[in-house]
Amino acid sequence: MTKLIEYDDASPDVRDVFDDIRATRQTDYINNFWKAIAVHPPTLRQTWQQVKAVMAGPGELDPLVRELIYVAVSATNGCDYCIASHTAAARAKGMTDGMLGELLAIVGTANMTNRLANGYQIPVDDRFKTS
Amino acid sequence: MTKLIEYDDASPDVRDVFDDIRATRQTDYINNFWKAIAVHPPTLRQTWQQVKAVMAGPGELDPLVRELIYVAVSATNGCDYCIASHTAAARAKGMTDGMLGELLAIVGTANMTNRLANGYQIPVDDRFKTS
Amino acid sequence: MTKLIEYDDASPDVRDVFDDIRATRQTDYINNFWKAIAVHPPTLRQTWQQVKAVMAGPGELDPLVRELIYVAVSATNGCDYCIASHTAAARAKGMTDGMLGELLAIVGTANMTNRLANGYQIPVDDRFKTS
Amino acid sequence: MTKLIEYDDASPDVRDVFDDIRATRQTDYINNFWKAIAVHPPTLRQTWQQVKAVMAGPGELDPLVRELIYVAVSATNGCDYCIASHTAAARAKGMTDGMLGELLAIVGTANMTNRLANGYQIPVDDRFKTS
Amino acid sequence: MTKLIEYDDASPDVRDVFDDIRATRQTDYINNFWKAIAVHPPTLRQTWQQVKAVMAGPGELDPLVRELIYVAVSATNGCDYCIASHTAAARAKGMTDGMLGELLAIVGTANMTNRLANGYQIPVDDRFKTS
Amino acid sequence: MTKLIEYDDASPDVRDVFDDIRATRQTDYINNFWKAIAVHPPTLRQTWQQVKAVMAGPGELDPLVRELIYVAVSATNGCDYCIASHTAAARAKGMTDGMLGELLAIVGTANMTNRLANGYQIPVDDRFKTS
Repeated sequence: MTKLIEYDDASPDVRDVFDDIRATRQTDYINNFWKAIAVHPPTLRQTWQQVKAVMAGPGELDPLVRELIYVAVSATNGCDYCIASHTAAARAKGMTDGMLGELLAIVGTANMTNRLANGYQIPVDDRFKTS
Repeated sequence: MTKLIEYDDASPDVRDVFDDIRATRQTDYINNFWKAIAVHPPTLRQTWQQVKAVMAGPGELDPLVRELIYVAVSATNGCDYCIASHTAAARAKGMTDGMLGELLAIVGTANMTNRLANGYQIPVDDRFKTS
Repeated sequence: MTKLIEYDDASPDVRDVFDDIRATRQTDYINNFWKAIAVHPPTLRQTWQQVKAVMAGPGELDPLVRELIYVAVSATNGCDYCIASHTAAARAKGMTDGMLGELLAIVGTANMTNRLANGYQIPVDDRFKTS
Repeated sequence: MTKLIEYDDASPDVRDVFDDIRATRQTDYINNFWKAIAVHPPTLRQTWQQVKAVMAGPGELDPLVRELIYVAVSATNGCDYCIASHTAAARAKGMTDGMLGELLAIVGTANMTNRLANGYQIPVDDRFKTS
Repeated sequence: MTKLIEYDDASPDVRDVFDDIRATRQTDYINNFWKAIAVHPPTLRQTWQQVKAVMAGPGELDPLVRELIYVAVSATNGCDYCIASHTAAARAKGMTDGMLGELLAIVGTANMTNRLANGYQIPVDDRFKTS
Repeated sequence: MTKLIEYDDASPDVRDVFDDIRATRQTDYINNFWKAIAVHPPTLRQTWQQVKAVMAGPGELDPLVRELIYVAVSATNGCDYCIASHTAAARAKGMTDGMLGELLAIVGTANMTNRLANGYQIPVDDRFKTS
């Protein structure tokens, strides 16, 4: 198994990030993603700051919508870990079975039409060009 | 340029779909995607039915959220046509510059953490396993 | 524009590959792909040997089917150059508009169901496991 | 494990699709993909209609070629479920070990040359531009 | 064209980042990537901090190797902007034509073998499992 | 499990390649990748020649850098087998924990900025256009 850094074995620098994850998420649980990337503390710190800012910071998109977007990207890329963890996070924020069904139907449809647009070599309409 | 089927040159089968696109979207404009895939009428009909159902049908996700998800997938895949057309559609449904900024920040972050999860070969936490 | 090596400016090593491309394809035309990768002769030689073997060598799949597969991969990846050049090659080998329509409909559908399988985290049926 | 809807526990709407899958494929076996997406009946119905049309409907491409294309896309995307299930389907339609070898050699080669075309930023030849 | 924020029109917050880009890279030139993402200042700030840390911060990998890795990812993803900008950056740090040729040959080969490993559904050797 | 061809059961043609793998790598161990693709001897031979040339042949990039590039591509594509085997190969050639951390941080960052460049539809700066 991949090396996972547990809180009790962590350096002060890593513990500091783990503490902020716990405080931000209001849970003692640190999931494997953070324990694994803690083998390289600068990556742990930067990645957490980034994830915290875009997922838990102020903004116009509500927290559930942010998680739906995260699942959409992860399902497109086929990242098993990310699909599992962010589906769980989305459910914790209120995603119903129906919402998941709609989300994945959109993700599937977009992946289909993306390839139709590629394969037919379709030129962008003038009105869609940014100006 | 790719062959585009204009309404006036279209077969009755194709016109029938074009008419439904116009009625559903309440605009006379048919964008290049539909004109291009109209060279294969079964693909035109099936794709439109699919897109209409997931994007304009009843459901729990509101229309703007559906477009944000579409843009997220298209930006992940790098489909230029789809990014341009669905960004325009999202703006028409109320997406602000701030929302686009937040959306792409999440898309970028998810694409980053997807690869960290891959590269570190991180095992899925038991609590994230579906049951 | 990217540097393209023309036949008249090519080294003997590059000309040797260009000559084999011409003889194999029975045309004087060398397309930009080969002229561009000729800046690194070992890549030119290896890539041509590989493409020649899998696309023009003996085998059970007929030449048109091989080109359809090439287009399917290129449309999935969104490689504009490869979509354009291999669609042209497929047409030269007999691909009709109808075949292209069917091909891209399958490519789109597979890209859709690939993401549904990812997103729903579906376990492989025992009977599909290789043994 | 992901929730799978068994036939005996299915709603009439879902059973109706399952019945059509059985009749079309002439087998009682419903594979996990359909049982999993049955949690969202509209996705089940639409996806089956799409897959049935492109894989089992009339057309110029024979059934084995359609499956080879499906495997090519799935191998490119790295979708484990889809690779396993469509490789099994292709074998059932007559794919030999030799054909699989040739197929994957083409898929690998196309994935290689797609990246060479990207990396060298190669312009599309005028003669490959659609007109 | 996409909206680009020029230095003279930028808010103090954006100018602050632009100033750091100029100081870090020792050039007055701000490339379009930064001007474009400046429409969402938090994304500009976070992205620059991330890029600066991983590309210009202390570490064991030398600057040229870091750029080669960036080009490898961008060519794999087919991101035209990133391929062009990071190829230029790599050349500025000493990449020769030969190095680019070797780099893209490795990228192409890895993309090929990735799909062979997928398609043949190859189990990971025990000795490669992390422990 | 996937069919793996062991040395003792291999045809002379396959043994010949296995012998060269052993001699080149100075180890008796043949990993599963080669045993699996040996079911199609032409693919085995071509793929080994390609991998041997780009990874073990003469060139300007040192062997460790070549492996880092291979891992970067594999992590981007999410190929589990390739990530595991090439991470092991990179460690055997001297990759430290710190180097792996830096590598994956760059891979993650490049995957992020690739999508920002896509999503913002950023035009390539004139100075980055190849000429």
